[in-house]
Amino acid sequence: MDLLAEASLKALDDAKIWDHGVDSIYVASMMAGELTHQTAIASALADYLGLLPAAAERIENGPASGGSAVKNAYLAVASGVYDAVLAVGGEKMRHVPGDTVTDLVATMTHPQGEYQHGVTLPSLAAMFTRLYMSRYGLTSEHLAKVAIKNHSNALKNPYAHIRQAITLEGILTSREAEVNNPLVADPLRLYDCCPVSDGAAAVVLYPLEKAREFSDSPVKVAGIGQATDTLAVHDRKDPAVLEAVRKASQLAFAMAKINPKDIDLAELHDAFTILEIAESEDAGFFKKGTGHKALEEGVTSLGGRLPINPSGGLKARGHPVGATGVAQVVELTWQLRGEAGERQVQDARRAYCCNFGGFGNNVVSFVLERE
Amino acid sequence: MDLLAEASLKALDDAKIWDHGVDSIYVASMMAGELTHQTAIASALADYLGLLPAAAERIENGPASGGSAVKNAYLAVASGVYDAVLAVGGEKMRHVPGDTVTDLVATMTHPQGEYQHGVTLPSLAAMFTRLYMSRYGLTSEHLAKVAIKNHSNALKNPYAHIRQAITLEGILTSREAEVNNPLVADPLRLYDCCPVSDGAAAVVLYPLEKAREFSDSPVKVAGIGQATDTLAVHDRKDPAVLEAVRKASQLAFAMAKINPKDIDLAELHDAFTILEIAESEDAGFFKKGTGHKALEEGVTSLGGRLPINPSGGLKARGHPVGATGVAQVVELTWQLRGEAGERQVQDARRAYCCNFGGFGNNVVSFVLERE
Repeated sequence: MDLLAEASLKALDDAKIWDHGVDSIYVASMMAGELTHQTAIASALADYLGLLPAAAERIENGPASGGSAVKNAYLAVASGVYDAVLAVGGEKMRHVPGDTVTDLVATMTHPQGEYQHGVTLPSLAAMFTRLYMSRYGLTSEHLAKVAIKNHSNALKNPYAHIRQAITLEGILTSREAEVNNPLVADPLRLYDCCPVSDGAAAVVLYPLEKAREFSDSPVKVAGIGQATDTLAVHDRKDPAVLEAVRKASQLAFAMAKINPKDIDLAELHDAFTILEIAESEDAGFFKKGTGHKALEEGVTSLGGRLPINPSGGLKARGHPVGATGVAQVVELTWQLRGEAGERQVQDARRAYCCNFGGFGNNVVSFVLERE
Repeated sequence: MDLLAEASLKALDDAKIWDHGVDSIYVASMMAGELTHQTAIASALADYLGLLPAAAERIENGPASGGSAVKNAYLAVASGVYDAVLAVGGEKMRHVPGDTVTDLVATMTHPQGEYQHGVTLPSLAAMFTRLYMSRYGLTSEHLAKVAIKNHSNALKNPYAHIRQAITLEGILTSREAEVNNPLVADPLRLYDCCPVSDGAAAVVLYPLEKAREFSDSPVKVAGIGQATDTLAVHDRKDPAVLEAVRKASQLAFAMAKINPKDIDLAELHDAFTILEIAESEDAGFFKKGTGHKALEEGVTSLGGRLPINPSGGLKARGHPVGATGVAQVVELTWQLRGEAGERQVQDARRAYCCNFGGFGNNVVSFVLERE
C-alpha cells in the first residue's frame, strides 16, 4: 500500500489535477493476495489516498497487469464516463523466499500441460533460448550484451532497482564468471534473469483536449494493442514466434497510423535477456532472427538508432510485477517530454512499449507520442 | 476454468455472436490464485474458449468483482475500441475448508484497523445488525423473513445453489430452531449468512445499435454507478449508512435519467440478511430505517410492488464471489426479457442491481432497461 501510494502521489503531483480530483483508479497487481495477504487493494488505496468516492478496481493479467491497467484507464477515459483516471501498478515481493516467488509466478502457466510437470518461467525462457541458438546463431555473449547494456542504462536511472555496472569479463569470459553468474536454467544465467523487486509506478490519464489545461507537455496515447496466444507454449505453431507480440504491436501501430521505423525508443519486457531480442523482432523493429545483430551493432544502445530499455528494463530497473507495464509507460512519458536526464534519447517524438504476460500469451503494447 | 467456460459458452450461445467473435474478455474472480493456485486466468480462458487473440484481463474488486467486470466491459464497448465484450465471473470455493474461506474473505478488511484484531465479514455484519436493531426496531424475525423470502424465490430458479424451503418455525421459533439455525456472529445465525458456493455467470455486451442485429430482445445498460467508502467501517461518520450504496445508486439513476420508484425489480447483495434491508433503503427504494417494514408488508416479495432478489439472492442463489455481480446482471436480463420462468416479475421494464464490495467500501450499481 505504501509503494502504491508513493507512486500515485508523485503522478498526481506531476499531473497537477488535485483540484479536479480523480474519477477512477486502476491498480495493477499480480499477487497482492498471495504475497501480502491483502485483497481488494484498489478500494483500500482509494481510501488511503483520500480519493473517495472514486471508482476503483484491481487489474490482474500476470506480468502484463500494468499494461492492462493503463489500457483500461485509457478505455475509461475514451468511454466518456470518466475524466481523470489513475493507473498505478505495484508489487511487494522481496519479503518472501525466492522459490515461493518462482512458484507463484509459475501459477500462470498451463496447469496440466506445464505447471504440474514443474515448468517455471525461467525454464520456458531457457527452452526458447535454445531454439534461438540453434536456429539463428544466437550465443551466450549476445545475451550477456543485453544485460550489460541495460545495467549501463540503469546507472543513469535514479529509480532503478539495480545500479551496478557489469562487464563481459565479469559475467561470462573470466575465470570468476562462473561464480559471479551461475546457471539458472541452462543456457540462462543469473544475469540473464530480471531480479525479484519491490516497487510501484503510476500515470494519470485525461482526455487530451483537457490535458492541455494541466500540462504544457502532455503525452498522447496514440496506439494501444493487446492480443492473447495459447497458454501452453507447446501448443504454438512455431514456439520461437511471439505471435501475441506481433498482433498487439500491429494493432498499436495501426491505431497510431505509424510504422515501427517511426519509433524513436522502446521499452521491452526483458524478464529474460532473450525476450528483449525476440520482442525487438516480433514487434517489427528487426527481421526475425536478426535482433541480436542489431544489438551487437549498437543500434539498441543509448545513442543508437533505436535505444531499447533506456530505463534499464526489467533486468536492471527491476520487475515488481504489477508495476512493470506502468513503469514502461512512465519511462516513455519522461523520454517524450525530455525529462529523462542522463539517459535522455535525443529528440524523442514517438515511443513504443511491450508488456508481456505469461510466456507471451497476453501482450499489451502502446505507442505514445509527444504532443 | 470449467465453471467460467460453461457460463461463457451459454452466454455466447445466447448472444448468437459466434460469427462476429469476441474482442475482449473480462474475468471477475476475487481469489483464483489463493483458492485454486492459478493466476492470469483471463488469458487461460481466452485460450480455453478458442477466442484467441481476444484481449483478456481479470478484474478483482472483492465481492464486487463481478459488477466491476461488467462495468469495464461497458466502458470497453463505450470507448469504441471493442465491439463484442464478454464479462464472466466465477469462483471455486467449496474445496477449501470454511474457515480458510472466511479468513481469505477477511483479507479485504483494513489490515491494521480490522483484520489483525480478528474482524471478519460476519462480525462486521453482526455489529451493523445490532446498530439497526437498537436504532430502527429491527428484530431477528425480520432477518429470518429475508431468508425465507429468498429461499422461496430460489425454489423457482434452476440455477440456485440452495433450493430448500424454510419456515419461521424451522429457523427461529420452534424448539429445534436453535439446532437448525445456530448463531454465527450474534445476532446473526446460519440462515442469515450466504453460503460458500461454486459457480459462474456470464454476459455479452455489444453496442446497442448493433445488438439489435443479433437479438430481438436486447437489454440496455441504462445506468452504471460506482463509489468507494472508507475501508475501516469505524472511520465512517455513521456506520449504519452505506454511503457507497447511496452514491453508486445515485450515479446509476442519474445516468439512466430515472428515479428509484421507476424500478420494477432489484437484485441486492444479501451476503447477510441485514444487507438486503439496508441496501433497499440506501439505494433509495425505502426511507432509512423502514426497509424491514416494507419487507413485512410483502412489498419486496414476488408479486409485491418491488420484488427484491427474485433469483434467490446471495442467500439462496449462492455467492461464488466473482460470479455474484455478473449473476445479478444476468437475472435482470432474464427478467427484462420475460424469460425468468416461475419467478418472472410481470411486465418488468426497468431493473436495478447492487454489488457490494468489502463491507460496503466499493459498490457497483446498474440500471438495466428493456429495449
